[in-house]
Amino acid sequence: MKIGIIGAGRIGKVHIRNISLFVPDMEIKTVADPFANEATEAYARKFGVERVTKEPQDIFADPEIEAIVIASSTNTHAQFIIEGAKAGKHIFCEKPIDYDLKRVHEAIDTARKAGVKLQIGFCRRFDHNHRAVYDMVQDGRVGKPHLIRISSRDPEPPSIDYVKVSGGIFYDMMIHDFDMARFLAGDEVEEVFAQGSVLVDPAIGEAGDVDTAVVTLKFKSGTIATIDNSRKAVYGYDQRVEVFGSEGVAMNGNDIPNTATFANGNGTVGGTAFQVMWDRYEQAFVNEMTAFAEAVKNDRETPVTGEDGLYPVEMAAAATKSLKEGRPVKISEIA
Amino acid sequence: MKIGIIGAGRIGKVHIRNISLFVPDMEIKTVADPFANEATEAYARKFGVERVTKEPQDIFADPEIEAIVIASSTNTHAQFIIEGAKAGKHIFCEKPIDYDLKRVHEAIDTARKAGVKLQIGFCRRFDHNHRAVYDMVQDGRVGKPHLIRISSRDPEPPSIDYVKVSGGIFYDMMIHDFDMARFLAGDEVEEVFAQGSVLVDPAIGEAGDVDTAVVTLKFKSGTIATIDNSRKAVYGYDQRVEVFGSEGVAMNGNDIPNTATFANGNGTVGGTAFQVMWDRYEQAFVNEMTAFAEAVKNDRETPVTGEDGLYPVEMAAAATKSLKEGRPVKISEIA
Amino acid sequence: MKIGIIGAGRIGKVHIRNISLFVPDMEIKTVADPFANEATEAYARKFGVERVTKEPQDIFADPEIEAIVIASSTNTHAQFIIEGAKAGKHIFCEKPIDYDLKRVHEAIDTARKAGVKLQIGFCRRFDHNHRAVYDMVQDGRVGKPHLIRISSRDPEPPSIDYVKVSGGIFYDMMIHDFDMARFLAGDEVEEVFAQGSVLVDPAIGEAGDVDTAVVTLKFKSGTIATIDNSRKAVYGYDQRVEVFGSEGVAMNGNDIPNTATFANGNGTVGGTAFQVMWDRYEQAFVNEMTAFAEAVKNDRETPVTGEDGLYPVEMAAAATKSLKEGRPVKISEIA
Amino acid sequence: MKIGIIGAGRIGKVHIRNISLFVPDMEIKTVADPFANEATEAYARKFGVERVTKEPQDIFADPEIEAIVIASSTNTHAQFIIEGAKAGKHIFCEKPIDYDLKRVHEAIDTARKAGVKLQIGFCRRFDHNHRAVYDMVQDGRVGKPHLIRISSRDPEPPSIDYVKVSGGIFYDMMIHDFDMARFLAGDEVEEVFAQGSVLVDPAIGEAGDVDTAVVTLKFKSGTIATIDNSRKAVYGYDQRVEVFGSEGVAMNGNDIPNTATFANGNGTVGGTAFQVMWDRYEQAFVNEMTAFAEAVKNDRETPVTGEDGLYPVEMAAAATKSLKEGRPVKISEIA
Repeated sequence: MKIGIIGAGRIGKVHIRNISLFVPDMEIKTVADPFANEATEAYARKFGVERVTKEPQDIFADPEIEAIVIASSTNTHAQFIIEGAKAGKHIFCEKPIDYDLKRVHEAIDTARKAGVKLQIGFCRRFDHNHRAVYDMVQDGRVGKPHLIRISSRDPEPPSIDYVKVSGGIFYDMMIHDFDMARFLAGDEVEEVFAQGSVLVDPAIGEAGDVDTAVVTLKFKSGTIATIDNSRKAVYGYDQRVEVFGSEGVAMNGNDIPNTATFANGNGTVGGTAFQVMWDRYEQAFVNEMTAFAEAVKNDRETPVTGEDGLYPVEMAAAATKSLKEGRPVKISEIA
Repeated sequence: MKIGIIGAGRIGKVHIRNISLFVPDMEIKTVADPFANEATEAYARKFGVERVTKEPQDIFADPEIEAIVIASSTNTHAQFIIEGAKAGKHIFCEKPIDYDLKRVHEAIDTARKAGVKLQIGFCRRFDHNHRAVYDMVQDGRVGKPHLIRISSRDPEPPSIDYVKVSGGIFYDMMIHDFDMARFLAGDEVEEVFAQGSVLVDPAIGEAGDVDTAVVTLKFKSGTIATIDNSRKAVYGYDQRVEVFGSEGVAMNGNDIPNTATFANGNGTVGGTAFQVMWDRYEQAFVNEMTAFAEAVKNDRETPVTGEDGLYPVEMAAAATKSLKEGRPVKISEIA
Repeated sequence: MKIGIIGAGRIGKVHIRNISLFVPDMEIKTVADPFANEATEAYARKFGVERVTKEPQDIFADPEIEAIVIASSTNTHAQFIIEGAKAGKHIFCEKPIDYDLKRVHEAIDTARKAGVKLQIGFCRRFDHNHRAVYDMVQDGRVGKPHLIRISSRDPEPPSIDYVKVSGGIFYDMMIHDFDMARFLAGDEVEEVFAQGSVLVDPAIGEAGDVDTAVVTLKFKSGTIATIDNSRKAVYGYDQRVEVFGSEGVAMNGNDIPNTATFANGNGTVGGTAFQVMWDRYEQAFVNEMTAFAEAVKNDRETPVTGEDGLYPVEMAAAATKSLKEGRPVKISEIA
Repeated sequence: MKIGIIGAGRIGKVHIRNISLFVPDMEIKTVADPFANEATEAYARKFGVERVTKEPQDIFADPEIEAIVIASSTNTHAQFIIEGAKAGKHIFCEKPIDYDLKRVHEAIDTARKAGVKLQIGFCRRFDHNHRAVYDMVQDGRVGKPHLIRISSRDPEPPSIDYVKVSGGIFYDMMIHDFDMARFLAGDEVEEVFAQGSVLVDPAIGEAGDVDTAVVTLKFKSGTIATIDNSRKAVYGYDQRVEVFGSEGVAMNGNDIPNTATFANGNGTVGGTAFQVMWDRYEQAFVNEMTAFAEAVKNDRETPVTGEDGLYPVEMAAAATKSLKEGRPVKISEIA
């Protein structure tokens, strides 16, 4: 199946490489990026891409192209979903669809009416450690989930310029964890309470955001999830989930670079979590794209639908409001 | 130093045994319990106790007795602290001092005016796993605490009759974790938000309590702690703490009965957490009593003061109010 | 049951304390030690011992005493077993019975003819970590043992004066592991090959011993065990066993003082193995003595019989000969 | 640099794929295999190989080709090294060079005289877990190695037909561990003692081999290494090394597919070792080829030289002789 990729920034390049190397069912015909230059073309050619253009229209208008990957800036996602759907393309779109819930609904509805498949890039569902915990919940051994704990901590905050336009930590960073909480709980959130502090960099506070945040989610069935985010973990990417239920507890830890340990009179020393997100999620990015290819090829529902892309945005909106107003916020106020 | 123990119930018997076997600086002269019977006397004699009585007065009035251990029911703690202080006895009192903050203040003030030492039985501070994390925070390697996570899950809920008079999960169970959060953060709490569900036993809900609870604490310096409690963990006592800071993260896990693991084609299997609380905290109970003996003997401040006994009760009150009213509650509203 | 303890040195004191505190079925009437002095008496009284004497005869001749614990120097073990057996006492004897196989046979035969119970102090069988692996083998989940690995490393070598009279590392240190290998394999050894080096302290070599040794044992059924010993592990007592079989592998690790770990950019740090052997095996010493009391009380075979005490001495003899002659040695050459 | 690959069997295909995808400094011009067919060509084209031939001569005679990878059957290795060296090609050769030490010497000498680089495919040196332990030894934190333990266990034995021509477990399987022991010890072996049993499949014994083997190596400096191999570990590929030295101990464990664990009343369950060797060593295969490319490109010594390829064959010969004759064998008898 021939595909087009819109956006050749960091995540775009990752998808170009992964699809070319590891997703045999897909062939990248065209890459579109408004800033496409020689470096972009060199990169694209290296991975067997036929054509590089500045114009996304070249992808929408191409009858040969069956599916598209939207990896452009967030503020173009909804637009490209709508155009791509109207052009009859199946769509993989990076998270989030948009920060504006109206736009999110518009994009999802357009895709549904056009009868095209839509998958949202919540890649952590495909991370081997998180997927293993999810599978344990799915096979019933945990029983009914009572408590969920999710920690996500990045090694470094983004630039202040980025922070200013990011929409805030709940939209920019915790949105992955909102999806993960839903994914693990198998239920919908009813109420959201957010707490936040500026502990890493005062400039983040001056930019109107927080760098350390904790959100409590109460699900309809009574399950309670807590998510903590920090913009700076000196030991690397820290991504851990735990589902405690009526029949047991499933949890994971971080991958370590190797299993070697050393012990002497001072104690035992081992490795630490991967420093680079791309390493951390390499296989997850491949898995999600493979899953998208299979959904398109076998005419099945995508594993992370447009609907799945909606709820985390609602939760981010509720968390943002909760932090601002200092009170719990019901999803029904937001949706 | 001769001591008297008031209360020979479950925790009272633990202290009788531990002091007799492992705290050489103390000698139990008298045990007082209103329900003292032959079994009580047999137990006491086994551990070398001189006298068993139904009357706490026999302890207060005895000039030979230098210090007392209050292990009676919660509703007698404040009274016995006051009487013991007025009688010039140094006091170790099981948690909590009382549920009524006025009574707590009264007891602490009486002890202070009398110039006697007062130690509160928050034994988890003396658990080797929690103490080790505390020490890591103290030695500066974690930097400034940003996020604290505490999980406390019991293997079985108490009887519904007990639940009805327990004061609720925040006073009865989470109070240990409130103390632990303060202990680890080295800071005071500003605001408390509680979420709760009835997921283990509907009868607990009917009794006006919850069996699954999550509390978020915001500290004055911005540190955020989350505590989760469940009344039923099928795998045993689960007690874990984590302190994430500017320079690293310290965390612990549960003790396991042994280090043996078995692997075959299905995976790897190992042991599980201790089932019985007394096993779980045996050494902690000994350590706290040893620390009390040392404080009395060397005229030093006790490691868990009356003040330390006040804040967790404030936090429990705030959490109870927060859950009831569905909003965050400032400690200043409660104190 | 009243018992007598012969030998109040290091291990003797451990047994005095453990029996007094933790083995309710036994009451120590008399302690005999040729060097008994005021300190010995003070220690004994503290643990409720009735009488301290310089004469083992006082124990053998006492009709009140039902069983004896032999914790004297190795060169007296066989003699005391023989005298004790003839006096009709049940016997717990520290390892080894003797270095001379003729004397070992003599002692075991005398005890058998006298119809008294005999238990040998191979306490590691009662260590919770080793016992757990043993239990896994016993319940069949490992299948037939194919390969066994045992590592035993001490934090410090004994004094050179002790090394000179110890009989060598195979009799003094590896003898525990010979018993453990037999215990885990559930089979008898056919052939022994020893390799050794002097790597810790040249004085040990000058004393005619080695400080680093590896022995391969071939069992009758084909199972192969390897044991390594070192007289100096800077990180503490290291005791690990592994049984690999047709259906899986069971292994253990060292206990750690606590479960706390710390991670920063340099890696993860945790605790290390216990430094002191007494800590390491405290519960094992209690367990073996409890098992002895139960065997006597219920008229059952002891869990570590005189026969069990014979084979490790044969294996030590074979290993010593193998190292000296640079060749594998069959047990049949030794027995 | 243009290279030629001789042999497109299992390991040959792995190298074709890895070099094509992950070793940008190399370009595979020609693949030679006497059984080359359409499938071979399809595979080769997929990875950008220019030409597929049945004739190794096409590679030796091609002036464009700078280096060759020998992945053909063992009995051709020496011959191809000699031909390749004479043709002035740099050579990466799969292990072992040959079973006949004379042929090994011949091949190494020819390569040296021709001034071409020679690297032997002992890929485990490049496995992240083994490399990490090696690095710990190299940085001095372990001190002088005293004891080395290596376990290598495969999930399934090879076919009996293969066993019959394999040369025996020491040449076929343990040869990797002989190299690893040398690599970790940083020393040369003086004496070898082998013990073996037939415990997995009697047919292996009938074919003149063993399926369970333990070898003790004594190094010149006194370091002692023990290696155990089993042809059947039901839990997957088990590869663990440990280096115990004067200053501490470094060890590793097996990679696990994910970090998820589940706990309930029965205990804790986790993943198990990778089942497939190719997964297990994927990155190692890439690393060794990358290292070869760097050695050729930068005119440096290869990290695993022809000499390094000699010693493990000597050790395999000594082990085979030791098992047969039931005695330790000095390398000097073999070399």
